[in-house]
Amino acid sequence: MKVLIIGGVAGGATAAARLRRLDEEAQIVMLERSGYVSYANCGLPYYVGGEITDRKKLTLQTPESFAGRFRVEARVRQEALSIDRAAKQVRVRRLDDGSEYTESYDKLILAPGARPVRPPLPGIDGGRIFTLRTVEDTFALRGFIEEQRPARAVVVGGGFIGLEMAENLTRAGLSVTLVERLDQVLAPLDRDMAALLHAHLRDKGVTLRLETAVADFEDCGGGVRTLLEGGEALEADLVLLAIGVSPDTRLAEEAGLALGARKSIAVDEQMRTSDPDIYAVGDAVQVKNLITGAPALLPLAGPANKQARIAADNICGRPSRFSGVQGTSVLKLFDLTAASTGLNEAAAKAAGIAFDKVVTFSANHASYYPGAVNMTVKVLFASDTGRLLGAQIVGAEGVDKRIDVLAAAIRGGLTGPDLTELELAYAPPYSSAKDPVNMAGYVIENLLTGTVRQFHWDQVDALPRDGSVTLLDTRTDAEYGAGHIEGTVHIPLDSLRQRLSELDPAKPVYVNCQSGLRSYIACRILSQNGFTCYNLSGGYRFYEIVKRQSALDTAPAHPCGLPVDQKKA
Amino acid sequence: MKVLIIGGVAGGATAAARLRRLDEEAQIVMLERSGYVSYANCGLPYYVGGEITDRKKLTLQTPESFAGRFRVEARVRQEALSIDRAAKQVRVRRLDDGSEYTESYDKLILAPGARPVRPPLPGIDGGRIFTLRTVEDTFALRGFIEEQRPARAVVVGGGFIGLEMAENLTRAGLSVTLVERLDQVLAPLDRDMAALLHAHLRDKGVTLRLETAVADFEDCGGGVRTLLEGGEALEADLVLLAIGVSPDTRLAEEAGLALGARKSIAVDEQMRTSDPDIYAVGDAVQVKNLITGAPALLPLAGPANKQARIAADNICGRPSRFSGVQGTSVLKLFDLTAASTGLNEAAAKAAGIAFDKVVTFSANHASYYPGAVNMTVKVLFASDTGRLLGAQIVGAEGVDKRIDVLAAAIRGGLTGPDLTELELAYAPPYSSAKDPVNMAGYVIENLLTGTVRQFHWDQVDALPRDGSVTLLDTRTDAEYGAGHIEGTVHIPLDSLRQRLSELDPAKPVYVNCQSGLRSYIACRILSQNGFTCYNLSGGYRFYEIVKRQSALDTAPAHPCGLPVDQKKA
Repeated sequence: MKVLIIGGVAGGATAAARLRRLDEEAQIVMLERSGYVSYANCGLPYYVGGEITDRKKLTLQTPESFAGRFRVEARVRQEALSIDRAAKQVRVRRLDDGSEYTESYDKLILAPGARPVRPPLPGIDGGRIFTLRTVEDTFALRGFIEEQRPARAVVVGGGFIGLEMAENLTRAGLSVTLVERLDQVLAPLDRDMAALLHAHLRDKGVTLRLETAVADFEDCGGGVRTLLEGGEALEADLVLLAIGVSPDTRLAEEAGLALGARKSIAVDEQMRTSDPDIYAVGDAVQVKNLITGAPALLPLAGPANKQARIAADNICGRPSRFSGVQGTSVLKLFDLTAASTGLNEAAAKAAGIAFDKVVTFSANHASYYPGAVNMTVKVLFASDTGRLLGAQIVGAEGVDKRIDVLAAAIRGGLTGPDLTELELAYAPPYSSAKDPVNMAGYVIENLLTGTVRQFHWDQVDALPRDGSVTLLDTRTDAEYGAGHIEGTVHIPLDSLRQRLSELDPAKPVYVNCQSGLRSYIACRILSQNGFTCYNLSGGYRFYEIVKRQSALDTAPAHPCGLPVDQKKA
Repeated sequence: MKVLIIGGVAGGATAAARLRRLDEEAQIVMLERSGYVSYANCGLPYYVGGEITDRKKLTLQTPESFAGRFRVEARVRQEALSIDRAAKQVRVRRLDDGSEYTESYDKLILAPGARPVRPPLPGIDGGRIFTLRTVEDTFALRGFIEEQRPARAVVVGGGFIGLEMAENLTRAGLSVTLVERLDQVLAPLDRDMAALLHAHLRDKGVTLRLETAVADFEDCGGGVRTLLEGGEALEADLVLLAIGVSPDTRLAEEAGLALGARKSIAVDEQMRTSDPDIYAVGDAVQVKNLITGAPALLPLAGPANKQARIAADNICGRPSRFSGVQGTSVLKLFDLTAASTGLNEAAAKAAGIAFDKVVTFSANHASYYPGAVNMTVKVLFASDTGRLLGAQIVGAEGVDKRIDVLAAAIRGGLTGPDLTELELAYAPPYSSAKDPVNMAGYVIENLLTGTVRQFHWDQVDALPRDGSVTLLDTRTDAEYGAGHIEGTVHIPLDSLRQRLSELDPAKPVYVNCQSGLRSYIACRILSQNGFTCYNLSGGYRFYEIVKRQSALDTAPAHPCGLPVDQKKA
């Protein structure tokens, strides 16, 4: 059996290694367009920023090491031009000299990945406009930074790569403006959770331009001018394009393979395309969302690795299936960690699933042990069954742990209340006796049992201030004095029982504290005293940060009359 | 309704708060024998060691704060003497003046916790012999250290408290000898995993005396002499007793409540004792092991908190049940983290469950990202169904995350192969595209599908060296030169295919590498070439560390003729 693999990074290289482990006799040829195989794709931004300094660390595997260990013939700088499915042949070009040849296959694995989107804008091919997909891209950008000592960068796109590059370019000493077409960064998060990232980006000196589209790029005396729709211009020394990626599926399309959404490659659960001798894996394929059953694209390394193993298994006659994705991801952004799994609000709405949500604010470990930091945890669950639908967490240490626990819980089909029963490891340096995941479960249980009702930050400002409802702040005097929701009555929790007579039981009470815990206790006191009441989910803290960031998002771009980039320079 | 709670730490305080949230009208009285309520029980060792410096952090809650927020009458230094179940009354002594009174109840919650075991050894009540259960114990020990400046400590017992105290006494500047009756520390771990802790304790300068029992304590000119069974004596300035805890159930026993194992309090799933008006929660109660269904005692804070909430729910008429424990725990030990969940080998054997196991050695995050450290992961699964039974992990950063993911997976009823499908969050600072949990799943899958067979460290030395089998080491020359299993043939993996003719296909081959990954690849090459072969689980590294530690465990206690404590002094 001869297996030809097109693409030699995450999916391709994993498939090659697994194939060899299962079949000593197979001939395995792996073609890679770039000059490197199985490189540290996800580590590239950190080389640009200088967090990873040894370039050899990015390229631990080589064609020689693949040959030595796996007897895989890995050929770099070889571009697959076309597939002749009838003849079971691929036409290949050697990029070094332009010569071409034909390679046959019994089974073909397509692992072409995804390409950075490059919209056809004027000037987009300028020498100061970079993308980051390959090792070559990375060395080029790092080389530019070391040689040219640029001071200002415009990053276009606020997804994973855009955000990682905003951090790493800042780390490399550049002043960064991040331009994003949508009203938030990091689309897997809901906008309220993304606001926590907006705040952190601004704290770190990144200029954030949301709902801003790029129209044009121009050279300008030793720099590059990014023209925005609306006419404003941002001057910088380099532009990093990270608008997103699209499946690199020209080859599959031209070969007449069935395509999925966004021209992805359609595959079955065995990772087989519409041609039974051609498999496809990784960023280029369409998969199934585990929770909704809907088609999905998820260009991440974890699923690519899993799919590659599954394709190899099936090629070698071992039944194996890829059951789908839930979209678990994590991002480091300066001192923050942002992670998500499953559905966010937009995805749940799009899937037509009736859901509710909780927002909690919990310490990563015992608050009395040094270094405790809180994280904001948002969990979505089905209104009817309580089934977990998704989770988003923004914080610092311990965020990745809780998202993985929630990812496993979703995979295991657990409900929100089941989270209360999870027996997680507790010692003061690691967690609390009630882990943040347990806490989210308790709040969900309280909602589902009707123990408390809640309202959300985006309903606060619309509450009537005409005296028909009561807004109640249960925080301390100091907290209240430092900022509060307009129109609130202020009664600290610990004096609420004594001062109940100040509240009108005929009026619904909307209660807040800082994070939602004290106001929950207040709601229990109030409801048992005949009040109808609602707890502000996530507390004043969440309301305030989302509202403040929203105001900054839409603030005039250059209040001093100067372009943003000049202020920072 | 009047609810009386005996015990005001984790279980008692949690029950009180939940009761109040559910019932504004109830009278709630909480009696605590020590001088503090709801204190940071698990933080006490870290105050002794100086990691936590502010004593107020240990005692964030006070009777006053409980009264203010929850209208709970918390009375400290009050000892419950007896329960009159017929009259529904408890006799109470005020420890400050010795006076007594009677307190009635409608519902009683017993949350007495567990007491440190103090065997009736001569001299055990000496002034230099400490235990650590209460805040008072903690301040006494810390005060002793600050005033007396002791140089040497003997810690008796190698469980959680003993190990945390070995670390914290070392941190406080003392030279520590740890005496443990069993042949390992930390009983939730199998002995091979505990060997990793033994090595670390020794690296950190702790003198480890395993399989050593204490016979007697004697004063000796300004110090305390610990006489061991066998006649040896350890001189020190203080002794910390941490032999374990036993349920503090005299009150329940004398009241005629049904007892469970080790005189624990028997409760049903509603946390109700044999008296329908008396509930019990926390370290004193017998619970059910989720995996085996057998009765279990698990004196940990997490379950205590969960049980307390459940007891309060049931008292307030909300159906709620405690489904059982799986025994998830985690320990910080100097620079290591050790964690476990579910069954270890001894527990699986005791339960009569046929199991198999894998040992892997995986990096906490991408190896090319700074700070990657490996962890040893051991996972037990049912031989027939593949169902996960338990896991143990020893390493540093990221251990607590993986044990929690595995705990959730066990809770969700997943199998070992299901771990391959877990979609966990990957970015280079947090994990690898194949997380350590996924890796364990792949190895289990390979075993269950017969893709590889394995052997274990404790089988190595018993393999015949008479030429009837081949022992093969597939590591590099440098690795092999630095130490190897006696009698191995050495062929580095990458030249194995070329040198196959050196091996006799008629003989079974026992293959090792450093961690088990390269030898797995070697096994795949060999088995496809007609060899019967076995992969050394956990690799040479695991074999070597367990063997070396075992040799140290049984080494003569004082090779230079000096007592161990004098060598260290």
